[in-house]
Formats: sequence, C-alpha cells, structure tokens
Amino acid sequence: MRNTFGNLFTLTSFGESHGTALGGVVDGMPAGVEIDLDFIQKELDRRRPGQSKLTTSRKESDKVELLSGVFEGKSTGAPIGFIVRNTNQHSKDYDNMCNLFRPSHADYTYFKKFGIRDYRGGGRSSARITVARCVGGALAKLALRRLGIEIKAYTSQVGHIKLAKDYRKYNLDFIEQTPVRCPDKEKATEMEALIDEVKTAGDTIGGVITGIIKGCPVGLGEPEFNKLHAQLGAAMLGINAAKGFEYGEGFDGVTARGSEQNDVMTESDNPTWLSNHSGGIQGGISNGQDIYFRVAFKPVATILQPQHTVDIDGKSITFKAQGRHDPCVLPRAVPIVEAMAAMVVLDNYLLNQAIKL
Amino acid sequence: MRNTFGNLFTLTSFGESHGTALGGVVDGMPAGVEIDLDFIQKELDRRRPGQSKLTTSRKESDKVELLSGVFEGKSTGAPIGFIVRNTNQHSKDYDNMCNLFRPSHADYTYFKKFGIRDYRGGGRSSARITVARCVGGALAKLALRRLGIEIKAYTSQVGHIKLAKDYRKYNLDFIEQTPVRCPDKEKATEMEALIDEVKTAGDTIGGVITGIIKGCPVGLGEPEFNKLHAQLGAAMLGINAAKGFEYGEGFDGVTARGSEQNDVMTESDNPTWLSNHSGGIQGGISNGQDIYFRVAFKPVATILQPQHTVDIDGKSITFKAQGRHDPCVLPRAVPIVEAMAAMVVLDNYLLNQAIKL
Amino acid sequence: MRNTFGNLFTLTSFGESHGTALGGVVDGMPAGVEIDLDFIQKELDRRRPGQSKLTTSRKESDKVELLSGVFEGKSTGAPIGFIVRNTNQHSKDYDNMCNLFRPSHADYTYFKKFGIRDYRGGGRSSARITVARCVGGALAKLALRRLGIEIKAYTSQVGHIKLAKDYRKYNLDFIEQTPVRCPDKEKATEMEALIDEVKTAGDTIGGVITGIIKGCPVGLGEPEFNKLHAQLGAAMLGINAAKGFEYGEGFDGVTARGSEQNDVMTESDNPTWLSNHSGGIQGGISNGQDIYFRVAFKPVATILQPQHTVDIDGKSITFKAQGRHDPCVLPRAVPIVEAMAAMVVLDNYLLNQAIKL
Amino acid sequence: MRNTFGNLFTLTSFGESHGTALGGVVDGMPAGVEIDLDFIQKELDRRRPGQSKLTTSRKESDKVELLSGVFEGKSTGAPIGFIVRNTNQHSKDYDNMCNLFRPSHADYTYFKKFGIRDYRGGGRSSARITVARCVGGALAKLALRRLGIEIKAYTSQVGHIKLAKDYRKYNLDFIEQTPVRCPDKEKATEMEALIDEVKTAGDTIGGVITGIIKGCPVGLGEPEFNKLHAQLGAAMLGINAAKGFEYGEGFDGVTARGSEQNDVMTESDNPTWLSNHSGGIQGGISNGQDIYFRVAFKPVATILQPQHTVDIDGKSITFKAQGRHDPCVLPRAVPIVEAMAAMVVLDNYLLNQAIKL
Repeated sequence: MRNTFGNLFTLTSFGESHGTALGGVVDGMPAGVEIDLDFIQKELDRRRPGQSKLTTSRKESDKVELLSGVFEGKSTGAPIGFIVRNTNQHSKDYDNMCNLFRPSHADYTYFKKFGIRDYRGGGRSSARITVARCVGGALAKLALRRLGIEIKAYTSQVGHIKLAKDYRKYNLDFIEQTPVRCPDKEKATEMEALIDEVKTAGDTIGGVITGIIKGCPVGLGEPEFNKLHAQLGAAMLGINAAKGFEYGEGFDGVTARGSEQNDVMTESDNPTWLSNHSGGIQGGISNGQDIYFRVAFKPVATILQPQHTVDIDGKSITFKAQGRHDPCVLPRAVPIVEAMAAMVVLDNYLLNQAIKL
Repeated sequence: MRNTFGNLFTLTSFGESHGTALGGVVDGMPAGVEIDLDFIQKELDRRRPGQSKLTTSRKESDKVELLSGVFEGKSTGAPIGFIVRNTNQHSKDYDNMCNLFRPSHADYTYFKKFGIRDYRGGGRSSARITVARCVGGALAKLALRRLGIEIKAYTSQVGHIKLAKDYRKYNLDFIEQTPVRCPDKEKATEMEALIDEVKTAGDTIGGVITGIIKGCPVGLGEPEFNKLHAQLGAAMLGINAAKGFEYGEGFDGVTARGSEQNDVMTESDNPTWLSNHSGGIQGGISNGQDIYFRVAFKPVATILQPQHTVDIDGKSITFKAQGRHDPCVLPRAVPIVEAMAAMVVLDNYLLNQAIKL
Repeated sequence: MRNTFGNLFTLTSFGESHGTALGGVVDGMPAGVEIDLDFIQKELDRRRPGQSKLTTSRKESDKVELLSGVFEGKSTGAPIGFIVRNTNQHSKDYDNMCNLFRPSHADYTYFKKFGIRDYRGGGRSSARITVARCVGGALAKLALRRLGIEIKAYTSQVGHIKLAKDYRKYNLDFIEQTPVRCPDKEKATEMEALIDEVKTAGDTIGGVITGIIKGCPVGLGEPEFNKLHAQLGAAMLGINAAKGFEYGEGFDGVTARGSEQNDVMTESDNPTWLSNHSGGIQGGISNGQDIYFRVAFKPVATILQPQHTVDIDGKSITFKAQGRHDPCVLPRAVPIVEAMAAMVVLDNYLLNQAIKL
Repeated sequence: MRNTFGNLFTLTSFGESHGTALGGVVDGMPAGVEIDLDFIQKELDRRRPGQSKLTTSRKESDKVELLSGVFEGKSTGAPIGFIVRNTNQHSKDYDNMCNLFRPSHADYTYFKKFGIRDYRGGGRSSARITVARCVGGALAKLALRRLGIEIKAYTSQVGHIKLAKDYRKYNLDFIEQTPVRCPDKEKATEMEALIDEVKTAGDTIGGVITGIIKGCPVGLGEPEFNKLHAQLGAAMLGINAAKGFEYGEGFDGVTARGSEQNDVMTESDNPTWLSNHSGGIQGGISNGQDIYFRVAFKPVATILQPQHTVDIDGKSITFKAQGRHDPCVLPRAVPIVEAMAAMVVLDNYLLNQAIKL
C-alpha cells in the first residue's frame, strides 16, 4: 500500500514525470454524488504549470479522463479509475543527468533503494505526480460540498515576505485572483517580484501555505495514533518539498502559558468558544471550529546554475540542469494542499459514520 | 485500526488513565532478538512521573509484564502482548468534572464523538496512554540496536528559553543528566527555573523537543504518500499536546534560496555530503545522513487555576482542576518521541526488505 | 498486521499455548453497547476443554479479564484489552518434542520460517490461541444482538456420520444440549460413540461444522475482493485444522443447471425468494436471506500412537505424543466458528455505514 | 480498500462491464524485474471470450496498456498503472433489465447497498472485471518465474463429469490444448459435449477448478488469521461464481483418521514427506511440498430462458435475458485462479522477507 492514501476514501496513485500517463483509483467515493467533470478539470487546471510567469513554462494540457465508477452523472460506489496522459515531455532535457545524482534530489535515494532509476524528469519523485492528488481531492470536494464543508489554502509566505498568521484578516475569495495565490494584494505583488528576481538568478525560493477547513463537523479524527491533525500532517508532509507542518498556534504557541492558550467555552445555544488557539482540534478530534494549519516548503532543488555533485560511480562532476522548472513551488502547491485536506476530511467523515450502531 | 500504529512492525494500544490496566500488542517483532526486560522497564521508567519536582507528584510504579512472544529470552516472531496495571489512580479527583467540558481538553470532542465519556483522568485522551508507546519503542530499540541505529531526543526549548538549532553543538550523552532532559547544563537550569515558576503559578508551559536518528541506512521511506518524514511527522503529531513538526531546516528554511540549501555530494569512498540541510531525507527516503527533526508541544491544558467553561447542558460554570498534573510535558515527552521514532524506523527497515526479490 | 483480524471492528490477538497469558485487543467496538461480562465468560467457557469425555481432559479455568474500553458497564469506543492467564500448562509433556518435527504439525514450518520455535504445546500454532477469538466474538455478538442478528453453528458431520445438509430440518436450540454440539439427538449419539472409539484407539477424527447467520441486513460485503463469503471463508479457514469452506449449495451445486439453482424473487411486501440456493449472498453482498455455510476440519494431527518423523538434524526418529489432546476438534470448534462469523458480520455492518454521505 | 487485494504486492482494481475502461494499479512490484509485455497480453488473452464455441461469442479485443512503473523494460518499484479499454459493449442488450432484478444476480444487492445501479452488463459485478486480475497475476508470475515458482490450474469437473482428485495423474502441460482447459483428453471431450448441450438448452452449468503451486519455498503464510490457505481461500472465493474452496484432502479428508492423514517426514538430505495430505501447508505456512486446492463454481445465473422475478417496485415480471453469455464459466476462470494464486504467493514471499533482521 505504498502508493495508497486514506482508509475508507482512498486514492491509489501511479505515474511518473515522463511515463505514458499518470492516474489513480479513488475507492470509497460515496454513491449517488453528482460528478461534476468541469469542476474536476478546473481543479486540475489550478496545478497546471504555465499559468503565469511565476511558474515553469512547460505546457501540460493535462486532460483528465474518468474511466469507471460513474453512471448517468453520479458516482455508483464502484472505484473511479482515471488517467491523465503525458503529452509534452522533453526527456532529452535529462540525458545529461542519467548518470549523476542531483543535489538534494531523490536521485541518490531512489537509486539506492530500488537499484534502478527512471531519471527522466525525476520519475516518480517529480511533483508532476500530484496530478493524481488533484483529481482525488476534487472528487472529495464534490462530496464535502454536500456536507457544507469547505477547504481553502493560500500562499502566506514566500522567502521573507509573509502575511499575518491570522487567516481571518484576509478575504479568502481573493486568493485565486493573484498568480501567487495570496489573498493580500500588496504582499502578493511583493512575492511575485521576489519570485521573478529569484528566477532571473536561476535560483529558487521557499515559503509557507496556510490551509483552512470550514464547516467541519464535531467528532472527526481518532483518539490515539490517527489524530485528525496527525493525519493532516502526514498528508501535507507527503507533498513534494514540504518540510514542516503545524496547526493552531503551532511552534509559536510553545512560549505561551496554558492560561493564555486554553480555549474557553461559553454558554450558548450551540457550543461556542472565546478563542481558537487549538486550531479546531482537541484531543485529535475536530470540535466544530475552523481548522487551520501551515505547511513549510523548501526552495526546490532544481536550480539553473552550475552545481557540483558526484556521478553514480562516486566521481566528482559539475553539471547544470536543463529543462523548465518552477522557481517557487508555492503557487502551484496551493491546490495540492487543498486536495490532500479534502481527502483527509472526507475519509474521517466516512470513518466516523461507523462509530456507533 | 484506530489504535494501531505501523505497517509491518505494529503497536496496537489499549488502556485509559483510570482503567484496570494499559497495554498493547507488538506484532511483527523480528524473531531471534534478545529481549532485555531490564532495558524495557528502564525505558518505561523514563516516562514515569514523580522523577523530579518538574513533573507531577503522582507515583506510578508502572511495572511492565510481557505476556507472550518471548521464549528462552528471545523473540519468537509471535505477537508480544504486554500490560501495565494502573495502581495509583485517584478517580475522586475527577468527580467534579464528570459533567463539564474542561477548556482545550478532549472532553467535549470525545463526548460528542462517542456519546459517552470516561471522565476519570481524561480516559483514553490522557497522556498516560503513552505507556504502551514506551514499551513498543523499547522493543523497536532492541531490534535497531542490532542494526547500529540509535535514536536520541532532548528538550531544546521551554517557553522562550531555547537551545541553538544545531544538535551537533551538544553532547547528547549528557541529556539524561538533567531533570528537564536538556544537553546544555546552563539552559537546563534556566528551563527548570521557568517550569518551577510556572508550576507555582498553577500554570503550564510548552516547548520543543529535538529528535535525531543516527545510523539509519539509505533507502527507508516510501516515495509517495508514506515518505519517511511524513511517517515521522504523523508519529510525532500523535503524541499528546504536539502542535507542530519539522525536519531538516524546517520552517526556517523557507527563506533560503535553493543555491544555499542544496546539499552537495562530494567524491569519496562512501557517499558524503558537504551539508545536511535536508535532514537526512531526500524525496521521502533516508540518504544515510543523520535524520533530525523538531516537535512543538503546547502548554498542557490542565492548569490549577479557576477557569470558566460550560457543562454538558451548555450552562456556564467555573471550576478548578484537582489532581496531580505536569506543569510542562516536555521532560517526560522526550522518551515518547524516541519511542515513536524507533517504531517508525524499524517498520520502514522491515518494509524495505521486501522491495526486491 | 499479521495477528489482526478485521477492518473496522478488529481483533489483534496474542498468546501461546504455554506462555504467561493469552489475550487481545478489540478495536472498533461501537460505543454505548452494554458489556455483559457473564455472557463473554460463558462464550469462553463453551470452548473450554474438559466439558465432556469427548474433549481433552485438560482443565483450563480460563477467566477473562477486560482491562479497558468499558466504563460504567458500557463500551466507550476505546479499545478493549483483555487477557486470559495460562494456569494449567504441563510444559514437561513436550520435553521430548523440542528437537523433532511432529507429522502434520506446524513444528517444521514455524522453525523454518522464524528460525526459532516455542515447542511447548505447539506455541502460537496451538488451538489454545482461539481463546482470543472467543472473547472478540462475544463482544461482536453483544453488538449484533442489538441489531437482531443471530449466529449459530453446529457439528453436522463427524467422520462418516452426517446430518442432512439443510439446516432448516433441525432445531438449532437443541445444539448445546449434546456434548458434540449436534442438533440431531440420534446422530449426536452416534458421533459421540465414534469419537469415543477413536479416542480409545489413540487416534483422531475430522468432521464438518455448519454455520448460519440469521437476520443479516441487505448490503453487507464488498463487490470485488472482499465479498462477504470471501471474508467468511478466510475467517473460517483461519481456524486451526480447517481444510475447506463452502456456502450456499457449495461443492454439491456444481452439478446443477442455472435454471435449477437460480433463486427466483416473488412479489411481496418485502423482498422474498422462492429458494435460497445462493446461501443469502449474491454478488458477494448479503441479500437478507439466511446465510449458511460449511467448514471442513481434518482429524487433528496429535495422535497418541508411535509415529515416525525426523528431528531438527533431519535424522529419523520414532516418538509418541504425551499430553492431553482432543480426539476430535469439532465440538469445541463450534463456538469458534460462531465467533469468527460474528466478527465478520459486525465488521461489515460498520463498514456499510460509511457507503453513503 | 474495498477494491484492493494484497498487502505488500497489491492490486487495486477498477472498471465495469460497460464503462470506458477497466484497469488497475499494481503496487509493490519488486524493482528490476523484466516486464515481458507479450506474456502479459497472452495471459489476458487466455480469459478472453470467443476462444471457442464453449464460451460467449462476445469479441473482446482487450489490449492492455501499461502506463507507468516500467523503464527500459524493467520494473522500477513504482506502481504500475494499466488500462484495458472496453470496445465491444452492447449496452442495448440490457435496456429491458434496468428496472428488474435478475434472479441470483447482484442486481438487487447492489441496488440496496448503493442506492444506485449500473445495470449495463452487470456493471461492477460482471466477470469482465477479472481483466484487472489477469494483468496483476501476469505481473506476479513474472516475478515468481525468477524464484522458480510455477502455478497451474485446470478444469477438473464440469457438471457430473469429473477427473480423479490426484492432480499428479495428469500431464499439466496438456491443459491449454483443450478448449475446456482439462488435461484429460477424454474427459475434456465429454465436458465439451455437456457444455454444448447445456448451451443449446439456454442453460448453464458449474464445475470445479484445481490449482497447483509448485516450487513454493518453505515459510510463506502467517500463523494466525492470515494462514496461507486462508489467503488463498479468500482469493478464490472472490472470483465471480465461486461457491467453495478446499485444499489438501479438503472436505473428503474429514472421514479419515489422524493416523491415516498425517504426513510423515523421512530422513533425507532435504526435508521429505511420505505423503502430502496436508496440501503443502502446515499450520498455515507452506512446507515446500506442492500446494494444491480446489474451487467450486456454480452455474452462472444468466440463462437464456424466460424467468420470473420482480421489478424495482416489487412487482412480478417475466423476462428473458439478451446478450452473449457463457454457458459455463470454468474454462475462462482457469487463468483467473492462476492469477489470484500468483498474487497471493508473491505477496507472501515479499512479506516473508521482513520476518528477520
């Protein structure tokens, strides 16, 4: 189950950067959900490169084809297989890399683990494999929509340019209106300038994405190992280039006192809290408040500058990467963060239906 | 599988704070490993409260009894069942809490999820359940010892008092010589003073634990969803009061350029890198360098001050927690961090043996 | 997950024949179910040896102790750990077997698989390990009782003495009134005489157990690999000494024509069929009719006659088993068949609650 | 994981009878295995209908396309996605069945379970979905071939015409030379005549398939719930129309005495037994002898005669099936039996590599 994500709503993913096609199988899609193909394609389009000068100039048309599990426009409960064909691969760009290990890439670890390596475009380690996650996430969102659960993510930091931590300060409807997917227009402009500068230098830069889950019902998540935030954390850390995850007050909260950070409940028709330092999760289980979290992404390893490394015989070598690469992964990682969160929430929603008789 | 951790080396855990016993089943322990009972008990003792004034004054004798899977001092490959009896529970301390939801505790979420709640000592949400993890981790360590893999953790921050991020500056053999489990003597003293101050105020404080895995072979971790750091992250985030996880440069690394953060390999008999910004993992797979990571813990929710909240009917109420509680979870969480890391590494080691024919 | 059974309702089992204790963890027990301890102990007593002259004279008091997951008499949704201590083990009986491989036992295969073997009483391969299954099954039955689902099993064949295949000919309430657990008084007497004869000869005999599930709702089971009967089959074949499984018309049905064996539905307020050749399962999914199946058990391997075999060095040796053994496993396997069926049905019931939004 | 088979070598399957395509993902294929595409296609061709007058006249070209996980002719350790497009579907044939429940089909159970039903060709309940199993099995066979493990299956009974139980009496190389896949030429001719007769009558007939695994190393299978034969049983019972499974002496062995059925080991350079009543598995673990088993198949439910049933409103209705259907599933089920066995064995082989350090 190395390439399967989830428990009851699962995505089994396949495909490499330069293979014939990428795709996957979504198993556990609840029956009777309307399958809005346009929405799924639109979600996939959000991760597509070439949307702006901030991203790689590769053109990936990336048309998704659903192969099963849908009948007369609705999910049947059968697994939904899907593929996205690779059409614009420049495998030649990687010819000079077949015998070397690119720094901070998965080249060395894959080769040692499997004894064989598809060096074209990073093979299975390429961020291109997130195509399958987008489709899985889009299907999950279609189900969550019926439950009134909404998931949003945005770029909250690029390099040293960062937004305030409190997501409530921002108009989340504005996110998609900037190429960098940042809801603060001014900061977005700064971020774009920074990415442009970095790109010109043949370099790359990291950042942070903030995610929010609204309308999550009480009770999702398991008490022990599979706490809701542990599942979200694993999901986010599984995204290419992710280096950290925190939710609620996160790392900053470690300096506070318990008396400052406890979320006090107050009398009301419905459960209400005076604060949300917890980030919508208590004891690993959602409490009905907004869930919010942050994911750190490193600067991607592929830079367009000469680099030293060793070849597969351990000899020193200098090389310069060819190909079309993102100077900053953040804008295109936003939909992936949403997709992973959507799958985690739906999976736990389904799991939670089996708690009582 | 809500209370099971791992894939091939698994811990299935049970027990509540004030139940009859805690325990678990370790399945997948490789056969033929010498089972050093003293070591296991010693590991369990490390998490025991009452070791210093920094921790709760509860006395938990916590003797572990292995019930199966061991024959003539060696593991047989059969599952290892174990129990630790609860002996010093003051359930009376919780009588005034049976009808209210303590702020930032799991009281509300458990009640809503299951429709029933064992309110004594937090029931299954208590940190006491980490007893099973200690035993599972100790067994994993016995196996890893044979492979030359070593795992260390220490308190690197309490409140605003923090160590340098680079663990190589510290003598890790010194960790266990301070009550707070910090390898810097001076900082340890400051941390202790802070915890003491917080305790006197009936308050609590958070912090950060740093973990290091030395001697991990190349190739552990799965390319896609189950990246080694994603598994470590899920493991750490599953520890009570954890709020964040990062590895390698983590959140701080987002401001760097790719050219600054790439780890360059250099010619050598064995693979060598000039740096380890990656934290020993590339593309989700260990590369043979030290793996290091940090885990954020919030101030624990139980403070010994009057607090406002609501009861199970939604009415406002003021209460003050009774009982014996930790003012700071960090010192006792150090062995749990190690235990979880040990289980993740062994699990992946076993999984990796099944990659090739 | 080698010793875990089930998906959402799981039993993780541990223990050997002559170890300290047997036990397990039931995870996924729905919250709020009344836990009738007397019933659980009674179910465990049903598998106890020494109930009649038909079974081994070993006395196993086998008192089950629930350690967690129950609060004020009800399940809390937390895992239920339990143990049954071994008290009457005669490990000496096996001293002469530590260096040889008993014919048709697991001695050789365990030794080769694990490189180490707990030879006392067969270790983990002993039928004694079904203790954990009885407890897991009893908990499942408590949940199923609330759903109106009832499970019955009986001995339908011992050696050549067999009942009619149609279970509807028998009064299932009579099963427990014969030592051999057969609802036909006359056949029961014949079976007992045969077992007695076999026992006197130091030999053993096999047979068949029929199982019936009544009140199973429509829709349990998964379409593809996890068809309800495939899960039942795996469960039954996992019982010690089981050699075959069939449901509905089973092996005998292969000679029929489709026109003879199709179950025709007929107009009615509720779905009604004119026959039940299918055995209550169509396309792997329960249809609401009675589910019935048969399990074949071989004569147990331990006979009290001199036998030839080889020792661990491959040398020929003659030995005679000591100890107290069952001449026929059937009577005591009846409650195990029920227990396994109960766990399968409850697991699928819970799983089925997560099909739709 | 409803549509996933296996633990370390897994097949996740998708597709319906009349959907766009069938396919799946094989995860856990060991790296470095030569992927012989011709062999895979040939295996798939073996299940194809229209090979003789014994099977349906549907023409399914069924070309498999591997989409990932293979590089320069070898497996890379990445998941292997594959599809087979549906090209010759006559959905019109099912128009008269969209509102009724065919007797002994999955129509009623699917509809009740999911609340929606793809009635075209049985949707996901069609035997056409075994396409994915053939491909998964072919990949497993490619790996097993390197280990010297060989799997064979043949039709051993059709209706009342049956072969001797002992597979050693037959030349297994002859199997594929008869349309019915039976190694006894005379019996094969009789079987063909019977199937022809049944077909002419618009009826169907069942039978038995025998499977043999040669060269299986000692030690495969898990001691408790996942005994090797329990896994084989579940695999076989998951095949469409399967009603029973037995291994070794199976149901017939229940009348024997232990003294007759025990397999005695004898002195030799390598472990040798004087018999193989056990069927190559002892205590759930392979012992190195041939593994053999039998699978019962019912007459398929679709007959070309008028039948009574009810419609989705519960009203009586008479209908006659259209379409092209197999009068006997046996010949085409032979490769499926092999495929499932191959996947089980490879999965357990991989699992067994993770037993020891």
